[in-house]
Amino acid sequence: MPEPIQFTVTATDGNARTGRLVTGHGEVATPAFMPVGTRAAVKAMAPDELWGMGYRMVLANAYHLALRPGAALVKEFGGVAKFMGFPGAVLTDSGGFQAMSLAKINSIDENGIRFRSHLDGAPVMLTPESAVEIQEQLGSDIMMALDECTPYPAEHERARKSLELTTRWAERCVAARRSTTQALFGIAQGSVYSDLRRTSARQITSLEFDGFAAGGLSVGEPKDAMREMAALTASMLPVSRPRYLMGVGTPEDLVAAIGMGYDMFDCVMPTRNARNGTAFTSSGRISIKRAEHGRDPRPLDEKCECRPCRSHSRAYLRHLFMSGEILAARALTEHNLYFYARLMRDAQAAIASRNFTAYAKEFIDGLAAGDAAGANED
Amino acid sequence: MPEPIQFTVTATDGNARTGRLVTGHGEVATPAFMPVGTRAAVKAMAPDELWGMGYRMVLANAYHLALRPGAALVKEFGGVAKFMGFPGAVLTDSGGFQAMSLAKINSIDENGIRFRSHLDGAPVMLTPESAVEIQEQLGSDIMMALDECTPYPAEHERARKSLELTTRWAERCVAARRSTTQALFGIAQGSVYSDLRRTSARQITSLEFDGFAAGGLSVGEPKDAMREMAALTASMLPVSRPRYLMGVGTPEDLVAAIGMGYDMFDCVMPTRNARNGTAFTSSGRISIKRAEHGRDPRPLDEKCECRPCRSHSRAYLRHLFMSGEILAARALTEHNLYFYARLMRDAQAAIASRNFTAYAKEFIDGLAAGDAAGANED
Repeated sequence: MPEPIQFTVTATDGNARTGRLVTGHGEVATPAFMPVGTRAAVKAMAPDELWGMGYRMVLANAYHLALRPGAALVKEFGGVAKFMGFPGAVLTDSGGFQAMSLAKINSIDENGIRFRSHLDGAPVMLTPESAVEIQEQLGSDIMMALDECTPYPAEHERARKSLELTTRWAERCVAARRSTTQALFGIAQGSVYSDLRRTSARQITSLEFDGFAAGGLSVGEPKDAMREMAALTASMLPVSRPRYLMGVGTPEDLVAAIGMGYDMFDCVMPTRNARNGTAFTSSGRISIKRAEHGRDPRPLDEKCECRPCRSHSRAYLRHLFMSGEILAARALTEHNLYFYARLMRDAQAAIASRNFTAYAKEFIDGLAAGDAAGANED
Repeated sequence: MPEPIQFTVTATDGNARTGRLVTGHGEVATPAFMPVGTRAAVKAMAPDELWGMGYRMVLANAYHLALRPGAALVKEFGGVAKFMGFPGAVLTDSGGFQAMSLAKINSIDENGIRFRSHLDGAPVMLTPESAVEIQEQLGSDIMMALDECTPYPAEHERARKSLELTTRWAERCVAARRSTTQALFGIAQGSVYSDLRRTSARQITSLEFDGFAAGGLSVGEPKDAMREMAALTASMLPVSRPRYLMGVGTPEDLVAAIGMGYDMFDCVMPTRNARNGTAFTSSGRISIKRAEHGRDPRPLDEKCECRPCRSHSRAYLRHLFMSGEILAARALTEHNLYFYARLMRDAQAAIASRNFTAYAKEFIDGLAAGDAAGANED
């Protein structure tokens, strides 16, 4: 039986690596960042714009789509990529994280997550089996196993029980899976405890998954702990399968995680922060609402070639933001996603030329130089 | 001295006509609809998208820009077209309409309009002289004289006094004007009274304006009265100058007004209604929020070639709208502006081939057929 995805490592430099991920909806060069398209739309962006920036895979939320417009409707329209008019691949999360964080009432037991819809209060039960079934209906190229994203902080005992539940759910997800064209990824948990991270990674990687993710990071733990656990987990994931660091992160975090050998990333930062007026630039973050940009004729980032940077001054963007114009959200989102896409392209090129360490240092130094000059002002 | 704009009638068909309007920022084929870019941004659209749809002139509001970011700042950035990154021409209104409708407190006397900013309550005095000065700072290609937009309903005596004030202000605008590169248009008022419309048109057209507008229409009067007054005013405006019908209107209104000999239009309908979920189509209006579109795989308009109609089903657009996604506002705005742009192109072609009456009938019949089939459901 052909596998639903093929993954080939094409170059390595230390732990960092480039790869080619072939899905049912085309090829994705890794390391790859996936813009977050919660409700089958990356906020403020049109699908062809994402494609134009080089994105070949986006993330959509199973929880949101199952509640509205419903997974059956998305299936009727040929799956989530076709429904949203995106010509590339889509990864769906399992819905577990949103069921815990957004739903009105919830409880977790062995069977799954019981909650009430944040839209209309309707009772819903999300189990490993239904999480897979929903994602099979959504027709995503990569499905994620239902896990319990261990909250931070969690006592060692609580974290241990949580990861063991995640493992049992992972087994049920593997058993429940029917699709032969959609990949299924497992998620390793373990909170901030090295022994638990090892246990979880060992258990999850023993199952028949097409790829593996590190979950439960960037949930409030100190940055050092996040990086240490991410690196530890990466070292335990098989070389031959894609490695996905969920929910991370800042440009600095991404460069660090690429250095650990991760291949895939998602995060709301470039899109959400854009709508709040924050732009990521090669010399750090800037907050466009600050008065100092009011008469500034420069683009957001003088080293950037995105459409907003070619068209608009900081003064104009600040005017748009202060006026509440939708174009402010559009322009900053487009810029930030362009910045993230370029980071991935540059990292790929650096790895291919075995120059990743120097690239990473120069990139981080550039951000820090902005710090010294008063950028990173978020 | 060269005139700031050149206008040439290129074809006529009955009262309808096509023309070429040459401005300091390029050429505009007429009849032309101008999208409304209140705060130097057409809501939800990027300037290059407007250009791509064929728009060569947009409208911006002097009132809004004078309050924020300030006319001096816009001047510093090379004028409003350059500030917003639009490669075409810009027409600014005088600010009088907004000073009356949006400002917190206002009073009109011979000298001008006294009001408090809706942003911060600061007292402002808008006079014919300051209205021209602000627009000269904004650097628009066409400036509008300060007028009193006579409210509806108005007694005959009130309407008469109002139009006479507008005439005295018009004289002061002409006298105040300094720019030799920006055109200045006069505005005829007269409410719904034929004698007053004639008087106002006669007085305004006796002054040294580069073009003329019919104002004070579509302000609440019956549709028949609007059309009668618009036609009457058009008949009194000089053939050799552009004729601008302000604030109109629906697709049906535009076709009617083109038939009267108007050359220029602006209206918030295609943009504002889009954000409220209404799409204009060749078979009438549809409201995307209605449940019947929930599983509809068709585009908004099967006869439309705009990007949203090529990419998105009604079902997806309804999902976006119900989810509050920015892309819903973008897609419907882009579609509606495309529909209006196409209406102008089709009308131009029909006039050039002396086929306007048949075109107008077919267009209106198409909208009505939608009515019969349950469209026009706004």
